Amino acid sequence: MLKQPFNEWMEQIQQLMEQTLAQQLPNTAALPQRLHQAMHYATLGGGKRVRPLLVFAAGELVQARPANLAHLAAALEMVHVYSLVHDDLPCMDNDALRRGKPTCHIAFDEATALLVGDALQTQAFQILATPLTDVTPQTQLRMVHTLAHATGHAGMAGGQAIDLASIGHRLSLPELEFMHLLKTGALIRAAVLIGAMAGQTLSQEASEQLDRFAKRIGLAFQVVDDVLDCESDSKTLGKTAGKDAANDKPTYVSLLGLAQAKNFARELRDDAFSALDGFGNSAQRLKELADYIVVRSF
Amino acid sequence: MLKQPFNEWMEQIQQLMEQTLAQQLPNTAALPQRLHQAMHYATLGGGKRVRPLLVFAAGELVQARPANLAHLAAALEMVHVYSLVHDDLPCMDNDALRRGKPTCHIAFDEATALLVGDALQTQAFQILATPLTDVTPQTQLRMVHTLAHATGHAGMAGGQAIDLASIGHRLSLPELEFMHLLKTGALIRAAVLIGAMAGQTLSQEASEQLDRFAKRIGLAFQVVDDVLDCESDSKTLGKTAGKDAANDKPTYVSLLGLAQAKNFARELRDDAFSALDGFGNSAQRLKELADYIVVRSF
Repeated sequence: MLKQPFNEWMEQIQQLMEQTLAQQLPNTAALPQRLHQAMHYATLGGGKRVRPLLVFAAGELVQARPANLAHLAAALEMVHVYSLVHDDLPCMDNDALRRGKPTCHIAFDEATALLVGDALQTQAFQILATPLTDVTPQTQLRMVHTLAHATGHAGMAGGQAIDLASIGHRLSLPELEFMHLLKTGALIRAAVLIGAMAGQTLSQEASEQLDRFAKRIGLAFQVVDDVLDCESDSKTLGKTAGKDAANDKPTYVSLLGLAQAKNFARELRDDAFSALDGFGNSAQRLKELADYIVVRSF
Repeated sequence: MLKQPFNEWMEQIQQLMEQTLAQQLPNTAALPQRLHQAMHYATLGGGKRVRPLLVFAAGELVQARPANLAHLAAALEMVHVYSLVHDDLPCMDNDALRRGKPTCHIAFDEATALLVGDALQTQAFQILATPLTDVTPQTQLRMVHTLAHATGHAGMAGGQAIDLASIGHRLSLPELEFMHLLKTGALIRAAVLIGAMAGQTLSQEASEQLDRFAKRIGLAFQVVDDVLDCESDSKTLGKTAGKDAANDKPTYVSLLGLAQAKNFARELRDDAFSALDGFGNSAQRLKELADYIVVRSF
């Protein structure tokens, strides 16, 4: 079968996610309207939808139903958006620009932005707990557990807390890696694992290789983010550029230098690729996506 | 069988919950320590544990395993604590006192309190998604959905948004009731329903009656809260008293007057009791608990 070119595939999923997310968000005409409108504002009309793309690409490994993948991907994206809305708050990164438009607390207000993040997190779990065709309740419960573990104190929220504590401190490379494994890596890993749970059951060994891929690509994503924050301007990024240095935050660029950070990202990409050796053609999208993530700017 | 007196039963569950919550919270010695310590600070050592008590009392209707009820009750209580921590933040109610001690953002800092609430919400879903003995994955998935629906935009977070929007406005009685059904009622209802899902399956009619009980008692809880906020001092409450009037928030007392608000609470309690008629002796704890909630001060 002739595969669709990567860019077409990506755009098609991005469009599908825009529709799916809009359907899964509360009606903006229903009370409380301001909260619902702010949830739509924060979630729709932007973002590369990297986590949904990972859900779809991993779902191809196991011949999962596309309708199920869209549903699951919406949950992953809502957790991601919730984290952005809370991270942008004045008590955290205090940022005014996100995805090329004013952040949620600027466009609305702080209290609303707080509730938007809270309600988006909840909505993600509600979506995962809604019964799906051809996925057992046992598997869905494992998906809820996987997402929760990736999102909470041992994942994203924990990584954010380490990030806060690290401002102004010099971290070692292992400390920086631990922070990023939690802060961004855990959710990216969950996207891959949840996509791969949605179809035929993988062998133990295949699951372990896929997990290795997910960990490497999650870390590569963060290394590339650090490079982009250093090299790009705010207009290109759609968010405030250079803020890591301005906030005196440790990054791969500050620890390794720019050239070495880029090399590290490529090494991680190569190791991620080798983890997919056993999957053959069904891993094509995951590989293309890994390349898209790592080489998006260099 | 001779039943344990209510106060003993209550204290025993409160003690058990203190242990169970401590076990379900992350280790304070593990990274990120400050987040984990703040999660313990906010969750342990206080609170009447009304939602856990409701889980246990409803669990008696269906002969649920006590160990499962303690587990489920911890999830309900964590959602409640997360809502308190976020509600106390400066951008919300800006409160300095909670359960007789400084609020989380005062004892720690705003960013940590934000993450504490975020991570406690996640932890609640992780707990519900951990497999239990004698509860099917299908039922656990329904529990996750029930908790999510009660917590998100159509429940607690939505009620909080309506509450924010209502400051300085005169609400009608139906509008006030709608706000409270979401803000506090939804989680109290979820506690009853989830407790009752943990054992033998109830008939459709029994479920509906139990739901009626839960809705009435949830509303009664809020009416009593309004009365207490008006009548008590901060020392007795363990939180800032009189803040509804100070914040110009509509309450049952401001709409009905004190005497009528108390009458309304009693009416709700009586209607809640009548919903339990079909359950016989197994509903004794639920009735005692309803009385404890409604007559705790008058």
